[in-house]
Amino acid sequence: MTHNLRIVLLKTTHPGNIGATARAMKNMGLTELALVAPKYFPHAEATARCSGAEDILDNVKLVDRLEDAVADCNLILGTSSRNRSLPIPLLDVKEAALVTKKSIQQGSKVAVLFGQERTGLTNEELAICHYHLYIPSNPDFPSLNLAAAVQVIAYEFSCAFGEIFEQEAIVDSQHVTGLDMERFYEHLEETLLGLEFLDADNPRLLMRKLRRLFNRISLERNEMNILRGVLTAVNRRCR
Amino acid sequence: MTHNLRIVLLKTTHPGNIGATARAMKNMGLTELALVAPKYFPHAEATARCSGAEDILDNVKLVDRLEDAVADCNLILGTSSRNRSLPIPLLDVKEAALVTKKSIQQGSKVAVLFGQERTGLTNEELAICHYHLYIPSNPDFPSLNLAAAVQVIAYEFSCAFGEIFEQEAIVDSQHVTGLDMERFYEHLEETLLGLEFLDADNPRLLMRKLRRLFNRISLERNEMNILRGVLTAVNRRCR
Repeated sequence: MTHNLRIVLLKTTHPGNIGATARAMKNMGLTELALVAPKYFPHAEATARCSGAEDILDNVKLVDRLEDAVADCNLILGTSSRNRSLPIPLLDVKEAALVTKKSIQQGSKVAVLFGQERTGLTNEELAICHYHLYIPSNPDFPSLNLAAAVQVIAYEFSCAFGEIFEQEAIVDSQHVTGLDMERFYEHLEETLLGLEFLDADNPRLLMRKLRRLFNRISLERNEMNILRGVLTAVNRRCR
Repeated sequence: MTHNLRIVLLKTTHPGNIGATARAMKNMGLTELALVAPKYFPHAEATARCSGAEDILDNVKLVDRLEDAVADCNLILGTSSRNRSLPIPLLDVKEAALVTKKSIQQGSKVAVLFGQERTGLTNEELAICHYHLYIPSNPDFPSLNLAAAVQVIAYEFSCAFGEIFEQEAIVDSQHVTGLDMERFYEHLEETLLGLEFLDADNPRLLMRKLRRLFNRISLERNEMNILRGVLTAVNRRCR
């Protein structure tokens, strides 16, 4: 069932951190690693620091865009220590482990995102997430090394999951995937432009605010069908 | 109260791990680091990897012998993933965090030991410990990077301690220190040799077994006084 939990590293600068992440994951029984536009990969330093977790590096999902790394995921958590102007629901690691366990038991596939080392997740990257996950830390020195953050989260998730790693999911998820959500947001944006509610020349934060709203709901498939039906009906009227 | 929790690294080979340990500690609000006979220290790579936790490196307690790193400690935990021929009481990280919290609240000073990267703690080093602390991990790939192990333990301890880090201990510990225990073992060994119960030419594992026994008790000062009195009485009779 570990294939239902994916670690996603975005635009990683230091290949050593990729290797150390693979080691940390394997130590905790995780297997699925995706890399979005890493600066260097494959790289000798990644291999050196993985210390025997080559199987994880060999099976990396290497993609150019974040959307492709989470297209099949039903629940997306963004790791971050920074405060945001548009906060999304916040979970500490122990809470996130319980939410993730519940989701996986219900058949969901879960992604945990880690931003670039110096900057963390951008607001755009965080806008794809259902939850903001943070590691409680020293307020005067909050920023963990990337692989150390993966280690803490993988440890806590693995403690919470226990034997569920050994089981197969018994049900299909009722929740939509990241790809479903991206298609929905495209449809929504197009509709709002047609309505002239959204101004292409001055979009402000409207789409990001709508993402925050709809991501918080964790839409089910039948709900998505209804929303898409509404958008189609509005589009038809606008023509 | 963080000065009542000391991280002790033994014979560390890679200076980068010392720096990464300092960063992990500071992230979690810990401050006390002791190094026993590191291969390289100070070192540029330690400074680079600490990423701003130089204050921890500047205040390192640098010693040649493990005994000197824990002389003032009342509770000593040894981190290890290996099974031992003479097992000492075992705690996972969450259990160890609770035991440590309780000890610190009662005025104890606590040390957590980490062995050399490839080998971990030796049996001799583990014989000084009251408890064996382990990080639950993949049985097929159990060995964490040194700094990653420090990160997980510091994280879990910091979660368990919460606000007690801010308080001062209100009582003096009733428990003896590592130095008290070493003096006791010297006294005990000398007594057993005098009794010819212990054979200097063929000591077997006797002293290690006795260490395991007495460490498990977490002796209080008045109990130690009684035991030392008994040893003195026996020695007097042997002469």
